[in-house]
Amino acid sequence: MTPPPSFADVEAARGRIADWVRRTPLLSSPFLDEVAGRRVFVKPECLQHTGSFKFRGACSALSALDPDTRARGVIAFSSGNHAQGVAMAARMFGVPAVIVMPSDAPRLKIENTRRLGAEVVLYDRELQDRDEIGTRLAAERGLSLIRPFDDPRVIGGQGTVGMEIAEDAAALGIHDADVLVPCGGGGLSAGVALALEAMAPDLRLRTVEPAGFDDVARSLRAGEICRNDRLVGSVCDAIITPAPGVVPFPILLRCAGPGLVVSDAEALRAMAAAFLRLKIVVEPGGAVALAAALFRSAELEGDSVVVVASGGNVDPAVFARALETDPGNV
Amino acid sequence: MTPPPSFADVEAARGRIADWVRRTPLLSSPFLDEVAGRRVFVKPECLQHTGSFKFRGACSALSALDPDTRARGVIAFSSGNHAQGVAMAARMFGVPAVIVMPSDAPRLKIENTRRLGAEVVLYDRELQDRDEIGTRLAAERGLSLIRPFDDPRVIGGQGTVGMEIAEDAAALGIHDADVLVPCGGGGLSAGVALALEAMAPDLRLRTVEPAGFDDVARSLRAGEICRNDRLVGSVCDAIITPAPGVVPFPILLRCAGPGLVVSDAEALRAMAAAFLRLKIVVEPGGAVALAAALFRSAELEGDSVVVVASGGNVDPAVFARALETDPGNV
Repeated sequence: MTPPPSFADVEAARGRIADWVRRTPLLSSPFLDEVAGRRVFVKPECLQHTGSFKFRGACSALSALDPDTRARGVIAFSSGNHAQGVAMAARMFGVPAVIVMPSDAPRLKIENTRRLGAEVVLYDRELQDRDEIGTRLAAERGLSLIRPFDDPRVIGGQGTVGMEIAEDAAALGIHDADVLVPCGGGGLSAGVALALEAMAPDLRLRTVEPAGFDDVARSLRAGEICRNDRLVGSVCDAIITPAPGVVPFPILLRCAGPGLVVSDAEALRAMAAAFLRLKIVVEPGGAVALAAALFRSAELEGDSVVVVASGGNVDPAVFARALETDPGNV
Repeated sequence: MTPPPSFADVEAARGRIADWVRRTPLLSSPFLDEVAGRRVFVKPECLQHTGSFKFRGACSALSALDPDTRARGVIAFSSGNHAQGVAMAARMFGVPAVIVMPSDAPRLKIENTRRLGAEVVLYDRELQDRDEIGTRLAAERGLSLIRPFDDPRVIGGQGTVGMEIAEDAAALGIHDADVLVPCGGGGLSAGVALALEAMAPDLRLRTVEPAGFDDVARSLRAGEICRNDRLVGSVCDAIITPAPGVVPFPILLRCAGPGLVVSDAEALRAMAAAFLRLKIVVEPGGAVALAAALFRSAELEGDSVVVVASGGNVDPAVFARALETDPGNV
């Protein structure tokens, strides 16, 4: 049995991937500060390779494999961003990648994954069990399964986001802040939580989810894993998972404040705000943390808030829809 | 008579503004490399404070004023990005700013400038002379005029973009490349040229302009300043000026390769490419250099190309229009 992930996994991941990942900055705008009523700092992981933080975890996992195992190839299942992250990491290492994707994933994500050189296997999100498909293909072909969040190497890689936040927050004099992270299975949130716990204990991790798919917020309240009733029906598709991952969840239970929830409409408005004020492209699921910073300020603590904009892989039509919303007085 | 700007002005500007400006990274995507047929590196100055490089020059000019003069306030005339840059710099220094803007400037730019605390004075671009208006107001109120490009302090500030490019290019092993810069009056291009000349003589500056407004390309060919026939009619409004500035032009004549020209349609397609592959918001005028990298590769030299994406202040409707274009196989 693998021991639970710790800050040592985050530090080790950073050592392996530092030369491969982009160190993203913290962006800000006086207009966003005004709306939020506090200083807002946005970490644009949409600017990461493949357009999301998922490249960090994938790169961490692949770099931790022994070379012979890695050479046989890897397999992943993902609604899109993990897929691209694994495909890109495999491309960099020059090894084959098979990606199992839901057939209703955004067209752009499926195409990108294929163009990065991966073999894409589609499945029906409502009828088929992606875990079963992935496990079977892995066994058949001798591929290493790279899970999207239930893996200490992946959580360690995502945690490098938290190390960078802790370092930049110290440099900017941010001492009293919630750190808002879009949360699906919890890999990014858990990794960031481990980094903050070790490096910036005054910063508190808060998960953010779309309304109706708030499994993490409910699980944190209940003290045990609760599941979503359904898996489709939100524009924030990238962060919809059946339930918090069994590996990340104990970390979140120990470190995270109450989970935050925003509506799809608020996520779209936050995308428009990020377009207007930060000049970054954020996908709906990646914008829920900024939405919470802007539109849920009464539920936050501290004179500052740090927000992870976790990804930017959004179809043009959905982005155009977001631009038609009124982001409010930002 | 002020001496012509030199690299010393760029270095001095950096010393004054380093703590105020964002150091922007170089972004890349394998998809863009494929289309361009060489490595493409994009410097996203749209992520700079106020959404464009103009903040650098404004900050440089204000920081060079003696405190008593600065306290009386500053004035600038601008189609938008210089306006916001000066307004933001004045706000940071706590001094008044008056901005003279064309009445047909994008609504968003006018609003932003006002909300940054500046007084906005509108004029008719076809009927009135903005220089005359600016000079008169400056005299009446004792304001210091911050010219958009004909000022060594401003050129020095914009040149910090070139210093960062030279440093990052060396770190990335980029030795054989054109450096493409969207060009209006030539302040950014001249500043970058000075930095490259001193720090990276193997990198060659190339100006990029929209078709029909190619005063700089024609001036470089003629060896003397040529004017545009008209000043309206391109979606790339931010970089339309009557003619290259008299202060930047001799620097461009000495350092720049042949000027590049792209169509409005290509600028819009480059915006779509930047959206898809880099997750950044670029305005039409800011996208002409990326357009040249993607769609004019036969006119470029080197195994790499460095592109400045100079600004991101674009109205949502124009951005949505860009998203409807086909960026090609990026």
